[in-house]
Amino acid sequence: MGPYMDTVATDFSAAPQVHVRNSHISEMNLDVLFHIGLTCSLEKRQEVVNTFNDVKFFITGGSAERMTNFAHSVAMVLGITTPYGYALSPIGSTSRYTLYKVGPVLVANHGIGIPSISTLLHEVTKLLEYAGAHDATYIRMGTSGGIGVDPGTVVITSEGVNNKMESVDEVAVLGSTELRPSICSPKVRDEIIIAAEEVGLPYAVGKTLSCNDFYEGQGRLDGAICEYTLENKMAFLQKLAGAGVRNIEMEARGMAAFCHKLHIPVAVVCVTLLNRLNGDQVLLSHEALQEFEMRPAAVLLHYIKAKLSAV
Amino acid sequence: MGPYMDTVATDFSAAPQVHVRNSHISEMNLDVLFHIGLTCSLEKRQEVVNTFNDVKFFITGGSAERMTNFAHSVAMVLGITTPYGYALSPIGSTSRYTLYKVGPVLVANHGIGIPSISTLLHEVTKLLEYAGAHDATYIRMGTSGGIGVDPGTVVITSEGVNNKMESVDEVAVLGSTELRPSICSPKVRDEIIIAAEEVGLPYAVGKTLSCNDFYEGQGRLDGAICEYTLENKMAFLQKLAGAGVRNIEMEARGMAAFCHKLHIPVAVVCVTLLNRLNGDQVLLSHEALQEFEMRPAAVLLHYIKAKLSAV
Repeated sequence: MGPYMDTVATDFSAAPQVHVRNSHISEMNLDVLFHIGLTCSLEKRQEVVNTFNDVKFFITGGSAERMTNFAHSVAMVLGITTPYGYALSPIGSTSRYTLYKVGPVLVANHGIGIPSISTLLHEVTKLLEYAGAHDATYIRMGTSGGIGVDPGTVVITSEGVNNKMESVDEVAVLGSTELRPSICSPKVRDEIIIAAEEVGLPYAVGKTLSCNDFYEGQGRLDGAICEYTLENKMAFLQKLAGAGVRNIEMEARGMAAFCHKLHIPVAVVCVTLLNRLNGDQVLLSHEALQEFEMRPAAVLLHYIKAKLSAV
Repeated sequence: MGPYMDTVATDFSAAPQVHVRNSHISEMNLDVLFHIGLTCSLEKRQEVVNTFNDVKFFITGGSAERMTNFAHSVAMVLGITTPYGYALSPIGSTSRYTLYKVGPVLVANHGIGIPSISTLLHEVTKLLEYAGAHDATYIRMGTSGGIGVDPGTVVITSEGVNNKMESVDEVAVLGSTELRPSICSPKVRDEIIIAAEEVGLPYAVGKTLSCNDFYEGQGRLDGAICEYTLENKMAFLQKLAGAGVRNIEMEARGMAAFCHKLHIPVAVVCVTLLNRLNGDQVLLSHEALQEFEMRPAAVLLHYIKAKLSAV
């Protein structure tokens, strides 16, 4: 299917699109996935299938460093052996995103913000569609500011909300704006809750505010621009708390909306680095920060291992 | 000013904020610039001044690789010698952004999209304010899709526009939305036009559409989601052309609005990798892509050298 069906009959040629919604793609012989630095061509379709068809999880988080560590942890926990004389190495181009393929787990950093994760999601989703990898679960593994929960709490997102507390992502399509529901998959969420319980880490389930900036949208008093008072800020954060928001970050809403639209199972699992009801600055020591950052990883490694064992 | 004035009288203590608009900052003893990985503290204020006070240009672009190359070019063109036994090395943390200080030029990659560049702009602007570096010019050096101009054209932005062709950035502030004018500085633009002419590269001046995604907002037919026709796409692109838009990217509008709000001189200089009236995919060879990516760098190196010589 996709760019591979137009001149050569293949096993997919009769198959409808599964997680892509774009009729134009069937007319392409070549798809340059520009930002991840991979090219899918008609001639090499079998290579794409051979390489990516087994992907069951796409795990993404903000920083390249953290996701590199996670890729190594996946290899260790799943017992995926590295050929002697080799090392795990990023695939594609690393100039925008750093992407790893570790057995059935695709791992990448998504940078900061919805536009950045959106670009990655489009390209990874086309790659997996071309590969016939139709049952992958997408999970964002991040850091966030907590609302009324202790630092170090693992928040599992029910839905992403915007600054008006609406569970939608506003996507500009040509000159119009589409509103897309930004809801995470209840089944995946419930499975991750079980994993968090089994690992024994503090967790909470709730809405996640996804902002388009780190300062003004999140009600911080420490940005280069801040024209509101402490009282305005606290009223906003209390309103969030009252609406069931448990943490604030910058991507969940866009990712949930993209996956919901394309029927891709999706979850967002973020540790909180501070309780925003008490302050704005992340004042953790390097060691504490590292330990907290490992918490979503620990939950997801447990979840992935359990899911793969259950097959 | 800044976090340094509350307990110790300094030369700045009486000075008003220049490019920061936040009265809360004067109450902070410590500012952790979390994403760039630098900390400004009351005790070390003089270090920040000594290190960053001479910054005259902040040059930022999408990819870390490209900005690393640019930092090396700045050193070469300005004749900044590296101490024997040392190499140019990123400052702060590289896990989100890669930042270099090369003489009077601060260089960083900003990742993809307005939220990503916004986070960087807030932190760099506070850093320069604390350092007393009040006359820095900010310039984005990027890649883009052209509208009716040949691939390889250097587009110098007059203003950033959104998908409705409005020259504003919509910034969520707590639960409200502020509209901020997204206009580049005419003086800097005119100086860069002269540099482009002197370097002898093809250039154009016009509006820049800044989108929140790479596919649907930009009217591409090759995303994982595309529910419009070729005719819808072309009508949108023709409308852009008619409104004076010369290129499309993902950051100019946010950067122009941030700088306009804070009275920071700002320009955006992007090469076009394709003419979007002819297609969507970036099909350049690696060599052609590298040559094109060097064009905004060539113009800006010439501009920076001329400005520093004129002092």
